[in-house]
Amino acid sequence: MEVYLDNAATTKPRKEVIENMLKALENQYANPSSLHKKGVEVEKEIKKIRKTVAKALGCNDKEIIFTSSGTEANNLAIKGIADAYKRSGNHIITSKIEHKSVLNTFTELEEKGFEVTYLDVDSKGFISIDELKKSIKDNTILVSIMHVNNEVGSIQPIKEMSKVIKNINSKILFHVDGIQSFGKIKINLKDIQIDSFSISGHKIHGPKGIGALYIKKGTKINPLLSGGSQEMGIRSGTENVPGIYGLGEAVRLSTEEIDNNIENLKKLRDYFIDSFENEVEGGHITSEKSDVFAPHIINVAFPGVRSEIMLHSLEQDGIYVSSGSACSSKRKGFSHVLEAINMKDDLIDSSLRFSLSYINTKDEIDYAIEKAKEYYISLKRIIKR
Amino acid sequence: MEVYLDNAATTKPRKEVIENMLKALENQYANPSSLHKKGVEVEKEIKKIRKTVAKALGCNDKEIIFTSSGTEANNLAIKGIADAYKRSGNHIITSKIEHKSVLNTFTELEEKGFEVTYLDVDSKGFISIDELKKSIKDNTILVSIMHVNNEVGSIQPIKEMSKVIKNINSKILFHVDGIQSFGKIKINLKDIQIDSFSISGHKIHGPKGIGALYIKKGTKINPLLSGGSQEMGIRSGTENVPGIYGLGEAVRLSTEEIDNNIENLKKLRDYFIDSFENEVEGGHITSEKSDVFAPHIINVAFPGVRSEIMLHSLEQDGIYVSSGSACSSKRKGFSHVLEAINMKDDLIDSSLRFSLSYINTKDEIDYAIEKAKEYYISLKRIIKR
Repeated sequence: MEVYLDNAATTKPRKEVIENMLKALENQYANPSSLHKKGVEVEKEIKKIRKTVAKALGCNDKEIIFTSSGTEANNLAIKGIADAYKRSGNHIITSKIEHKSVLNTFTELEEKGFEVTYLDVDSKGFISIDELKKSIKDNTILVSIMHVNNEVGSIQPIKEMSKVIKNINSKILFHVDGIQSFGKIKINLKDIQIDSFSISGHKIHGPKGIGALYIKKGTKINPLLSGGSQEMGIRSGTENVPGIYGLGEAVRLSTEEIDNNIENLKKLRDYFIDSFENEVEGGHITSEKSDVFAPHIINVAFPGVRSEIMLHSLEQDGIYVSSGSACSSKRKGFSHVLEAINMKDDLIDSSLRFSLSYINTKDEIDYAIEKAKEYYISLKRIIKR
Repeated sequence: MEVYLDNAATTKPRKEVIENMLKALENQYANPSSLHKKGVEVEKEIKKIRKTVAKALGCNDKEIIFTSSGTEANNLAIKGIADAYKRSGNHIITSKIEHKSVLNTFTELEEKGFEVTYLDVDSKGFISIDELKKSIKDNTILVSIMHVNNEVGSIQPIKEMSKVIKNINSKILFHVDGIQSFGKIKINLKDIQIDSFSISGHKIHGPKGIGALYIKKGTKINPLLSGGSQEMGIRSGTENVPGIYGLGEAVRLSTEEIDNNIENLKKLRDYFIDSFENEVEGGHITSEKSDVFAPHIINVAFPGVRSEIMLHSLEQDGIYVSSGSACSSKRKGFSHVLEAINMKDDLIDSSLRFSLSYINTKDEIDYAIEKAKEYYISLKRIIKR
């Protein structure tokens, strides 16, 4: 049995997504900048897809820029806005639990002379609205907050945050990293005062190599890539046509099925949490059966057994998960997110992320929990010897 | 009959390329950063492909960075090097006929305080080695020259240029935009003192959305994208795995078949030039049957008939070419390249680019020339009335 529970790292592209990509690869291969009809055909299709993405977010299609990834979308928004507005002030705000594509971008801007506030979070991964309010200064030009945290699943109250920010100073720009939330939480940009919002294809069963950035009409943004002035001059380079075709289909399906998906994911997550709590004696669970947590991310720990050991044990039975402590540069092997929520070292050291998709089933959860339980018992026994 | 002669704009992905992409999309969809074996499997495959690309260029695999496009590769090289070496000097050199992804990047750096020399070219699109030599100053840190011009096909003598540059000051970095040359001109980076070299997937029957940059070991380069430190920290963002798989296959095949391809392309180009000269009375041709011109790019003009009119006439018969005057911002509808070679306005206005691939045939050329001849005669007649 193969049980892929690493859907927050990446998802399997859907059949419909691949079919749409094949259309671009096999037939509609022309350059959308070419003036002949083969080029125009592709240009028209991209225009349609831009509308699909805009509709899914509740914005205008001229506010959507295709990028090569969520990382590029975050970099473009943050660097592009900071550079365009630097004459208005040099203070920028983010949180300590952002994805590296935001956090490292802020560090880079800090090195270039920007003043950065890194907001703390509580033990469950939530930023205090009050702290955010207090951090805003006269020279603040940008706030960047992630919608859903990729390790612990906490959902930040972005609507409330936007009100707080814009009430203090409507000129402060608000970027939201929506990469882990898009498709898992309903969002309508018409209802929230957000200036930019990033999404990624491969987190929603689309392809890797494609992302998109919403940029509110009228927002100044300096490009990262100069050249042929594609994407309304904001992102040069021949369009990743197969990627865009794939993203379009993934967004269309994800939007169509969102109510159903969210409901099922929540059921599955709650089922996982209950089973884990009942079955895995001594196990620790950070995520909660609550609407303030994303429906697809579950952070657990197996105290006493290092994450990697459990991860590689589970993979022997075809169960694929993430170590909560991967990809940190600060402290080798330690997650900056789990450190920020003040998790104890032995929990950080033994934490794993199980992340769900609409294609997972209860049977798969049963199988994963059963195996995790078995390994935990036997590994603890071996380690104690 | 469909005759696609716009291969310098983009090429049709090969079957083998698509098959390799499908492997990534359908099965090897894991995130190469994931620690489990599904991730490791992808990571290993990318490592293999990096070696394939390195072998094709004659460099080490650790010197290859995958990017989202040729444009990104050019931007990364030029901005990354200029930023990393700005303390050593602020003079940078390029030519007037570079692709926009180089030219606009230089303009941007100029606005940021760099001093830029834009080298002239002669009437055939060649930079004078002597002028290059004279342009180098004590504070020069970077020279960026394209290998093959995308509009007129002139090949710059990059080996000679590198010697001139490095003889004056071995510390000056030399970037070569190889996007139009890779696969059409044999190159071995072991033989030339080049510090960075960019290639693009979709110009060699690979997919759009993927490119690569060679960066010589020891060269400092500041990243454009911050984040998870993929690509040895030089280019963050989840790898475009299907794109990389496709690029790898395109590079492998292109390298395997290069001798044959070049020979056939030259024959086809020469056949086109002869036919054009014999058949199209009053037609003008810039490209030559010579080894100093790329084997796949032919710039011609139909004086008296605007490019767009001829382009749209030809497309009615399934013949797809480029207008030599597309994509310019300087002077609406005018190519900066054709202006730089001092082409007369009436020629610029009526120029078209026919660009070849190994899949084109003599029959297709016959058909295209025949139709071009017919349309030219009838259009001239109509316009004269």
